[in-house]
Amino acid sequence: MKGFAMLKIGATGWIEKPRPAAGPFDAVVAPLALAPCTSDIHTVYSGALGDRHNLILGHEAVGKVVEVGSEVRHIKPGDRVVVPAITPDWRTLDIQHGVPHQHSEYLLSGWKFSNDKDGVFAEFFHVNDADMNLARLPDDITLEQAAMMPDMMTTGFHGAELANVQFGATVAVIGIGPVGLMAVAAAVLRGAGRVFAVGSRPHCAEIAKGYGATDIINYKNGDIVKQIIDKNGGKGTDHVIVAGGPENVLAQAVDIVKAGGTIGNINYFGEGAMLEIPRLAWGCGMAHKTINAGLCPGGRGRMERMIALVANGRVDPSKLVTHKFNGLEGVEKGLALMKDKPADVIKPLALI
Amino acid sequence: MKGFAMLKIGATGWIEKPRPAAGPFDAVVAPLALAPCTSDIHTVYSGALGDRHNLILGHEAVGKVVEVGSEVRHIKPGDRVVVPAITPDWRTLDIQHGVPHQHSEYLLSGWKFSNDKDGVFAEFFHVNDADMNLARLPDDITLEQAAMMPDMMTTGFHGAELANVQFGATVAVIGIGPVGLMAVAAAVLRGAGRVFAVGSRPHCAEIAKGYGATDIINYKNGDIVKQIIDKNGGKGTDHVIVAGGPENVLAQAVDIVKAGGTIGNINYFGEGAMLEIPRLAWGCGMAHKTINAGLCPGGRGRMERMIALVANGRVDPSKLVTHKFNGLEGVEKGLALMKDKPADVIKPLALI
Amino acid sequence: MKGFAMLKIGATGWIEKPRPAAGPFDAVVAPLALAPCTSDIHTVYSGALGDRHNLILGHEAVGKVVEVGSEVRHIKPGDRVVVPAITPDWRTLDIQHGVPHQHSEYLLSGWKFSNDKDGVFAEFFHVNDADMNLARLPDDITLEQAAMMPDMMTTGFHGAELANVQFGATVAVIGIGPVGLMAVAAAVLRGAGRVFAVGSRPHCAEIAKGYGATDIINYKNGDIVKQIIDKNGGKGTDHVIVAGGPENVLAQAVDIVKAGGTIGNINYFGEGAMLEIPRLAWGCGMAHKTINAGLCPGGRGRMERMIALVANGRVDPSKLVTHKFNGLEGVEKGLALMKDKPADVIKPLALI
Amino acid sequence: MKGFAMLKIGATGWIEKPRPAAGPFDAVVAPLALAPCTSDIHTVYSGALGDRHNLILGHEAVGKVVEVGSEVRHIKPGDRVVVPAITPDWRTLDIQHGVPHQHSEYLLSGWKFSNDKDGVFAEFFHVNDADMNLARLPDDITLEQAAMMPDMMTTGFHGAELANVQFGATVAVIGIGPVGLMAVAAAVLRGAGRVFAVGSRPHCAEIAKGYGATDIINYKNGDIVKQIIDKNGGKGTDHVIVAGGPENVLAQAVDIVKAGGTIGNINYFGEGAMLEIPRLAWGCGMAHKTINAGLCPGGRGRMERMIALVANGRVDPSKLVTHKFNGLEGVEKGLALMKDKPADVIKPLALI
Repeated sequence: MKGFAMLKIGATGWIEKPRPAAGPFDAVVAPLALAPCTSDIHTVYSGALGDRHNLILGHEAVGKVVEVGSEVRHIKPGDRVVVPAITPDWRTLDIQHGVPHQHSEYLLSGWKFSNDKDGVFAEFFHVNDADMNLARLPDDITLEQAAMMPDMMTTGFHGAELANVQFGATVAVIGIGPVGLMAVAAAVLRGAGRVFAVGSRPHCAEIAKGYGATDIINYKNGDIVKQIIDKNGGKGTDHVIVAGGPENVLAQAVDIVKAGGTIGNINYFGEGAMLEIPRLAWGCGMAHKTINAGLCPGGRGRMERMIALVANGRVDPSKLVTHKFNGLEGVEKGLALMKDKPADVIKPLALI
Repeated sequence: MKGFAMLKIGATGWIEKPRPAAGPFDAVVAPLALAPCTSDIHTVYSGALGDRHNLILGHEAVGKVVEVGSEVRHIKPGDRVVVPAITPDWRTLDIQHGVPHQHSEYLLSGWKFSNDKDGVFAEFFHVNDADMNLARLPDDITLEQAAMMPDMMTTGFHGAELANVQFGATVAVIGIGPVGLMAVAAAVLRGAGRVFAVGSRPHCAEIAKGYGATDIINYKNGDIVKQIIDKNGGKGTDHVIVAGGPENVLAQAVDIVKAGGTIGNINYFGEGAMLEIPRLAWGCGMAHKTINAGLCPGGRGRMERMIALVANGRVDPSKLVTHKFNGLEGVEKGLALMKDKPADVIKPLALI
Repeated sequence: MKGFAMLKIGATGWIEKPRPAAGPFDAVVAPLALAPCTSDIHTVYSGALGDRHNLILGHEAVGKVVEVGSEVRHIKPGDRVVVPAITPDWRTLDIQHGVPHQHSEYLLSGWKFSNDKDGVFAEFFHVNDADMNLARLPDDITLEQAAMMPDMMTTGFHGAELANVQFGATVAVIGIGPVGLMAVAAAVLRGAGRVFAVGSRPHCAEIAKGYGATDIINYKNGDIVKQIIDKNGGKGTDHVIVAGGPENVLAQAVDIVKAGGTIGNINYFGEGAMLEIPRLAWGCGMAHKTINAGLCPGGRGRMERMIALVANGRVDPSKLVTHKFNGLEGVEKGLALMKDKPADVIKPLALI
Repeated sequence: MKGFAMLKIGATGWIEKPRPAAGPFDAVVAPLALAPCTSDIHTVYSGALGDRHNLILGHEAVGKVVEVGSEVRHIKPGDRVVVPAITPDWRTLDIQHGVPHQHSEYLLSGWKFSNDKDGVFAEFFHVNDADMNLARLPDDITLEQAAMMPDMMTTGFHGAELANVQFGATVAVIGIGPVGLMAVAAAVLRGAGRVFAVGSRPHCAEIAKGYGATDIINYKNGDIVKQIIDKNGGKGTDHVIVAGGPENVLAQAVDIVKAGGTIGNINYFGEGAMLEIPRLAWGCGMAHKTINAGLCPGGRGRMERMIALVANGRVDPSKLVTHKFNGLEGVEKGLALMKDKPADVIKPLALI
């Protein structure tokens, strides 16, 4: 079968590989919609996962089941399914000991696609533990909506969970790329009052407002910390969600949040040995500014929750999709867009 | 001054009382909008608080400050303010020991209006600790919106907090009177997926749908427990908010919620020595069906959060107001409506 | 093989059954120590689980592995293991949706021994999902200690978890049978200050004091609610753990706990269609007296935590063992003791 | 009156000041026992609070009330009281908005002694809001025990709270000075299983073991991260409490804790603009390693909880007191000891 792969650091291309087979608990899926992700860019061009050779890329997919293992009960060939980016092993001792499923075997172990094994940018891909990791897609949800669930939506919504947003509270969302936009929607959908969305691209700002951001904060107008605190009556915000931004964005979040407030980080930090926290703004270690940070939840149950939000009209994630391509080849074009990032790109989608 | 009072159990009328005076931390407020509440009906006609004589009724008010004590800093005469139904003492040892402010001195001690002292249905009323209990009302919020905050909105929103509603979860809201409608809005605003709203009045059902209820459950169509579980694929819901209903409504909530689910009760139970929990549905005491139940939060900070929700367009509580009257006399007419409950009444309002 | 069984409601006896076999993920275990439980009495004499015929009894065991399935990795024949009373299915959708593992498939589904399948009072017994449900027993822990872990210890400790005991707080533990005694130890080990232990048997009272109870409350000296509140300076306690007691014990707990306090129930309620909550003490539904209630945690991870507590000298659960018998036949003698409950019995143990 | 003061950065000495007077809600207290603290050393010699002139030092005191304001109800002259290091304003809007009392008016605002106003190393000192901040000391608690409560004990116990220690879990406590020793005791008293205590001084190690540490980790034997993970079977610990250590101690904590684990920081970081978090060990921002960090709780309620722990025999904090001096002059000698830190000093105490 054909797949679009990282050939080595800095190089991508189409390769041939054998079609994967399903073990007794697994499934093989053919893609219906595939979305390239900034993480794919990190993987290829920053070598975020190390040097990999002929690794098929991609972890955001909606697909049609083509094969299931002997022990699979919940789905059958022909079913349309949402495939979460995170497909953990669920039957592990660490989960019993309170480790989130994203790390059920070791740190970030739930992230298998285009990391531990080939990704989804292929004619077929393998899904471990299909009953626990694949969610059936209702007919009335579009592929554009569904394709935002495996990563963008679950990640953005996790930001609001990690930041523990409360009714009527003030929230700053740093970064309004696709994940940040979902974080804005999620903050509003968890009951935020005023939402400061930090970003500079006009198209993103428009969508942020559509999702409920009340103030757009542009770094071109000055220090974002000062801008937010000034607009917030001289006080820190109750919550901050870090969904993008420059290297010092965690430090900015500590500057922005109030004493007793909570930071939810969903940003991938790709550079440097150390991240920094400003000592004084963190009260020399005594400010009760909690820092939560984590990989997006995956698995079937999480996807079912995302589906429930869309099916019941709570949020429409398809607003993120700015560019569509036909055919599997679209992943190459989409990835090129993610790399170059023209101002109007939020999320490209290949429809197969 | 004139006030509308409970004369004795079963009897109301207008009485004359001296205008209250403000202690050093207090304020005297003249009403701008007053809303009668079912609790007033319980107080007068069920003797819920015992026999009281010449007690001025009412605890839902928006007003204009006319006098402040020497130590008050935050507000001044002429300010428009939202007056929470619950105006606790904030400087108490019990709060330090983790008791919610609603009970800061003793069980339900934060409920002072028309209980420990005269209520708000008068030309003037007294507010303890004005800096901590009164929230300034922004100009762009209407009296209809503001008047729903002191009790209806904070109570309904507390239901979603007590039930700990999560993203995409299923929620049953039992009762769609004004508090239940706010609970529906709150469940949706905390990220609920499917929301089953239990009630029979068509006008309420319409508003419930407007606030995001996905299914209206009418007891006239059969047992509500069975209806909800059938529609929910044979499973209990993740959360239940009890906001009204018959005597056995707590038992119904235990029947409806899943193992591991949470019930948030904001219903006032007025009858009987004992409330009942069904033993088997509660797993003989082992089902992990948590029961949270509590009086609505009050105080200035809570009102500021309610204001933030309305000011930022998250919810419009004025949809509850079905009948308006002019003048202080309107409270008598409004209360009569609450007593008789014609089908189209949700919430009457007197505008002064 | 030989097993001690419930023949029908009200009758027990020794029966012959085929030795169980291990499926690919399972194990077969031969007992080293077996403890009869009050639940066994409920099962046989109250028909708590309905009429069962020739069902082998027992769910508290320490044993030696004799056979493992092809997929088992963690243990091997010859290993000494602690067998939790609750051995759930861990790979279920409901766990993903936040349902505790005790109910991973349906209400109380984790309770399999002597309920869904034969129990442990036999020459051999079957354990599902051995890697996830069996914990290896270190050499330096005695059988007496280990045999208290599968149910008594994990249940009592869950009481302190459900009641969310905080540093220096006041705790009432109602019932000082073996589970209640473990709840006393757990409350102390979670940082309780004053601990009121409610019970009348002198031997239990002695052990309760040894585990850290500061006040023994005996119903023979008057109403326990009044006794506790009087001793506590006229105030409700911060936490209540319900670990036994008469039918109205849940109502008593609501009476004892303060506004804003938490009740943790680990008691099995065996009688009546309805449990009762006192309406006024529960603030007519508004007192913020939270009621948590649940079946004990099981599984390998939980047993490892119990082992860690004993291995590191935090608690010695073997104080519960008052009577020891040799041989498998001891379960019959032990169960007879649990049925008759002479004053000096806390927990009998059969050593095989 | 006489007081021992910071004269300027790097210089201390005895000065004369007028005796403070009590406002209506306040008290004046004469010390019975005073404990110098490392924070006093930071204040004077590192200029941690900036350059201060003639500021009376000290924030750890037990005393006798000599004057109370007109509105004080709970205490009267002659009462023995524990004086928390943190004496916040309790009647503030920020507390209503969920800010911890330690920051009730602004970041760290609850820390008033020897910061916003003169400290306790004087013949008399002033306490704001006496009813809310002073706890009466029972007769059967010694001055040595009581003097450890205002800071050492409440801080160490907060470490276990911030790290959210669970039954049977593994905990690393970094630093076994007086606060770290209390954190060891607190971790054990919240139910920790194995406790790795990191420190090198033999006397401290002995006391740590007495409080329940199971493993002493000495940096002289190699990298502490590697030592702990090796001893813990190659896995990170469930919890880490940071109670001291070198500049990179926060980074070490992130290295030590497991994915999904929690760090509780109670360490004061005195140097550098930025604290560092290791990017890879923090999962590039995705490891779910939560970082909680905060100033110790103060106020009357907290001191009452500390008193309850000691009065009921749960912990004896007097083991920390290694050196005693008679008279107010002892604070100078004690502070000199804290500055030089000979190996056998944990905590000096002046008994007046």
